[in-house]
Amino acid sequence: MSHKPLPRPGGRSARVQQAVHAAVSALDDGEGRTQLTIPMIAEHAGVTPSTIYRRWGSLRELLADVAAERLRPEAPLSDTGSLEEDLMVWAGEFMEEMTSRPGQQALADALGSASHDPRTRCYDWQCEQIALMLSRARDRGESSLPSVDTLIDVIMAPLLYRVSHAPESLSETRLRHWVRRALGSACENFRANTE
Amino acid sequence: MSHKPLPRPGGRSARVQQAVHAAVSALDDGEGRTQLTIPMIAEHAGVTPSTIYRRWGSLRELLADVAAERLRPEAPLSDTGSLEEDLMVWAGEFMEEMTSRPGQQALADALGSASHDPRTRCYDWQCEQIALMLSRARDRGESSLPSVDTLIDVIMAPLLYRVSHAPESLSETRLRHWVRRALGSACENFRANTE
Repeated sequence: MSHKPLPRPGGRSARVQQAVHAAVSALDDGEGRTQLTIPMIAEHAGVTPSTIYRRWGSLRELLADVAAERLRPEAPLSDTGSLEEDLMVWAGEFMEEMTSRPGQQALADALGSASHDPRTRCYDWQCEQIALMLSRARDRGESSLPSVDTLIDVIMAPLLYRVSHAPESLSETRLRHWVRRALGSACENFRANTE
Repeated sequence: MSHKPLPRPGGRSARVQQAVHAAVSALDDGEGRTQLTIPMIAEHAGVTPSTIYRRWGSLRELLADVAAERLRPEAPLSDTGSLEEDLMVWAGEFMEEMTSRPGQQALADALGSASHDPRTRCYDWQCEQIALMLSRARDRGESSLPSVDTLIDVIMAPLLYRVSHAPESLSETRLRHWVRRALGSACENFRANTE
């Protein structure tokens, strides 16, 4: 958890962040991306450009910060009654969102920052969500549960790799394979299931 | 293989690309990143800014293109006599390079582009390298070989995820675990090996 503390809600710093994030969302329609400038965002947000430079350093870091907030999970996690289905719903929603055009843009912004902070936040959220699913599974009496690390490595990592490098290779079958592999019920290679 | 064909070597287009890439490398010391502009790069490369805008569209896409070229494997793949060790050397070199400061910057640039092209090239190279290692293993008579897909998902994907999101969690032990899991000799969870 190496990221900077979030600004106090309602404080001046939080209000500036909210206004600047809202300005980016309003001005960034995904089309005129290369036209977006810090002075333009500052004017829309009602702050000075130097406020933005001081806080974010560059447009790229500001866009990464806004993207990370977009990647923050909103809806409460589904409780389907089994860890396998909870993981399928969770990973399936991520896959759907991240293969959309705004999702692809948010992902590129978050992955493209020089600062680790936006990615550290995404990692922390993903670990928290997995920990919640595992704790529910434990409460239901499910046994032989994998670790948070295993679920990150075996499900989230290949999902993110393929969303970013080869989105056309994604499918629900592949996702199911990863989930089962993570749960220890499918140690064989993916090939075995699909060829 | 959805990326644009590479320019004909020695042709005008290839010479422009080479000059512009060299200018970026010369001007981008990783420090004054936010000062880097297309007119500055154009002047250093001896081309007009509009040549760069026409070809790459934006600074961000140009930086991603340069980064992808930096990520292109250079050294011939080690042939250690076993697939497990070949994979360890290959993934170990990637880990070492990508956790360095220039590696982290190249990775962020390649992952941060709106265009898929730089990432598709990286994916193609990774698949080609894996296919070569598998073909050598087949020639040596190694059996029960995993697919290229499995090696991407079980080794390269978590490696890239952790390089990008949580580099401090990487270790050679973890890498060995992924390689063994991919080769089918370690279906148990990572936890089992480390806790």
